Amino acid sequence: MSPKANILLTPGPTPLPPQVREAMARPILHHRTREFGQLFDFVLNEMRAVYRTRNTVLLMTTSGTGAMESAAVNLLSPGDRVVVHTTGVFGDRFAAILEAYGMEPVVVAEEWGCAADPRKLEAALRSLSAVKAVFFQHTDTSTGVLNDVRALAETVRRNSDAVIVVDSVSGLAAEPLETDAWDLDVVVTGSQKGLMCAPGLAFAAVSERAWKLVESAKLPRFYFDWRRMRKSLPDLETPFTPAITVIAGQAEALKLIRKEGLENVWKRTAALAAYARARGQELGLELFARNPSNILTALRLPPGVDGDILTARLLAEDGISIAGGQGRLKGHLLRVAHMGYISRADLEAGFAALARRLAPAAA
Amino acid sequence: MSPKANILLTPGPTPLPPQVREAMARPILHHRTREFGQLFDFVLNEMRAVYRTRNTVLLMTTSGTGAMESAAVNLLSPGDRVVVHTTGVFGDRFAAILEAYGMEPVVVAEEWGCAADPRKLEAALRSLSAVKAVFFQHTDTSTGVLNDVRALAETVRRNSDAVIVVDSVSGLAAEPLETDAWDLDVVVTGSQKGLMCAPGLAFAAVSERAWKLVESAKLPRFYFDWRRMRKSLPDLETPFTPAITVIAGQAEALKLIRKEGLENVWKRTAALAAYARARGQELGLELFARNPSNILTALRLPPGVDGDILTARLLAEDGISIAGGQGRLKGHLLRVAHMGYISRADLEAGFAALARRLAPAAA
Repeated sequence: MSPKANILLTPGPTPLPPQVREAMARPILHHRTREFGQLFDFVLNEMRAVYRTRNTVLLMTTSGTGAMESAAVNLLSPGDRVVVHTTGVFGDRFAAILEAYGMEPVVVAEEWGCAADPRKLEAALRSLSAVKAVFFQHTDTSTGVLNDVRALAETVRRNSDAVIVVDSVSGLAAEPLETDAWDLDVVVTGSQKGLMCAPGLAFAAVSERAWKLVESAKLPRFYFDWRRMRKSLPDLETPFTPAITVIAGQAEALKLIRKEGLENVWKRTAALAAYARARGQELGLELFARNPSNILTALRLPPGVDGDILTARLLAEDGISIAGGQGRLKGHLLRVAHMGYISRADLEAGFAALARRLAPAAA
Repeated sequence: MSPKANILLTPGPTPLPPQVREAMARPILHHRTREFGQLFDFVLNEMRAVYRTRNTVLLMTTSGTGAMESAAVNLLSPGDRVVVHTTGVFGDRFAAILEAYGMEPVVVAEEWGCAADPRKLEAALRSLSAVKAVFFQHTDTSTGVLNDVRALAETVRRNSDAVIVVDSVSGLAAEPLETDAWDLDVVVTGSQKGLMCAPGLAFAAVSERAWKLVESAKLPRFYFDWRRMRKSLPDLETPFTPAITVIAGQAEALKLIRKEGLENVWKRTAALAAYARARGQELGLELFARNPSNILTALRLPPGVDGDILTARLLAEDGISIAGGQGRLKGHLLRVAHMGYISRADLEAGFAALARRLAPAAA
């Protein structure tokens, strides 16, 4: 068997730094010990730095979707008026979660590939009264779009008393985000993207304004109950047995981010994104997102190229994982990620293989 | 610094076999690939063998409590009559989960340390009509008790059409359990106990009788929605990004169980339990559970010995983790686990340290 690459250019899981892998293989700690408490405290403190917040940070053993659901059930009561501004699969997921709990969200939808337009949100908020919460994405990996979180948050504040819930599962620690400076009430994220760890952990940063809603919210919850999580924080514990090995890995990843400096992480990610956009366009591929994010470049394939076959061959023959389109974009997009521990060399190898496979002779 | 032991005699997490640790440190797989699909399929198949079932097995990224909650929300509708037969902290947790969703469970409670008495369950079921579900524990780690799951299940079948939901988070792959032969509808478990893996994964085995309820159940759920999990099974996928590294570890642990043979695992665990019970009694400690389980031995401390101080010193000075009492038993119990990868040598070291610390001279 000839050597084959093992390069992940996928938007989560992203490749793991060796320090993170080593930490996950250590003998396991018990979660009701001082040693674990110190690890847990370290992770929460470093997460506050990454979130740029002084708010409470909660840790959950779940995927990013679980953290999104936790925001819905901890903030809302039946009949509450809520707005979801959606720009793709993950915005639609916020709406689906709310509907599963019997809520009837007002959905402000953008054409896929377009960023959330604050003017549309403003119009919606002006036509509604007593909006309890507004949900939107920082970045939506289904389209590669970056939303202007600051402008959207300002729009909410100008027009309502709603809490602002941001899904930054794919954006945090890759794209600039300022939880406190932009006055964001809840920001949820996951361990497996910009945070450079394995999947299994999710986080929420929760403002005092949001905690007031948590106390009165009537939607049912137990495992995702933020009150229980907050109550166990002074003991440096989690209410239920957490994913201890993933937390050990997350601590190492956060040390790497601390060492590099968060702003340098943002710059590095931006430089990789610029490279990916330029290389994609050199290959004659159109950028799908109007306001492309630095976490992932979505490239539209020319008619006649089946994206599913292309990504399957890249994986099977070249050892390179690149995501295709999701939902209605299945087969029509390539989504090349450049967040987390993805390197320039990974991207160069990925685009070289792509160039080979897209060249007319190889078609 | 002199060398110190690092011995976990705790009921989850339990120590990890080196093969499991190594697997969690491998370069991460993407979860939408054939390679992951094969791993996932292997884990589900081996879990069916451990569950002794041909029913559908679902995998969730959550703790055992999340799996317990998933059983409640996928089976029930508001107003359904349900019975919880509780023998400790984890039975009480079933009741608390149900109450969080607005249900009013009929609770049949045993004195702590006593096993669930099928006659009490029978009396409760005879006094009620249209019971939708009965919940109980296989083993309750708070008291070290083993319930007679088979007799309880027969009692349910004789007296109602209810589905039988068993929490075997701590029992599976340690104590005998026969999902199909005993006609159990739902059995939930977690990765970090008898299954010898890190925490972060939970499983549910779901019978056809239970699936009928799932289709009509009205309690709200999204992340824990079993319908979505079942829908993605033919593609060997999970609906949301799972804890991939923990799944890789779980596969290795299941290979170890396969190699040893599940019945040999049961025998080995029973022999360790017999040793622990004998050693505990030699030290003058009374067995707390009337029907003690093989997963964990709960020992009552004599008056005047503070269990919290004792376990803290065992950990800090001897490097041995032994759990104390939970809830109303805090300070009064030692709970010595002997499930999963805990060895005879671990137990011998643990009891030797305990003997030293309980000896009058050391008091």
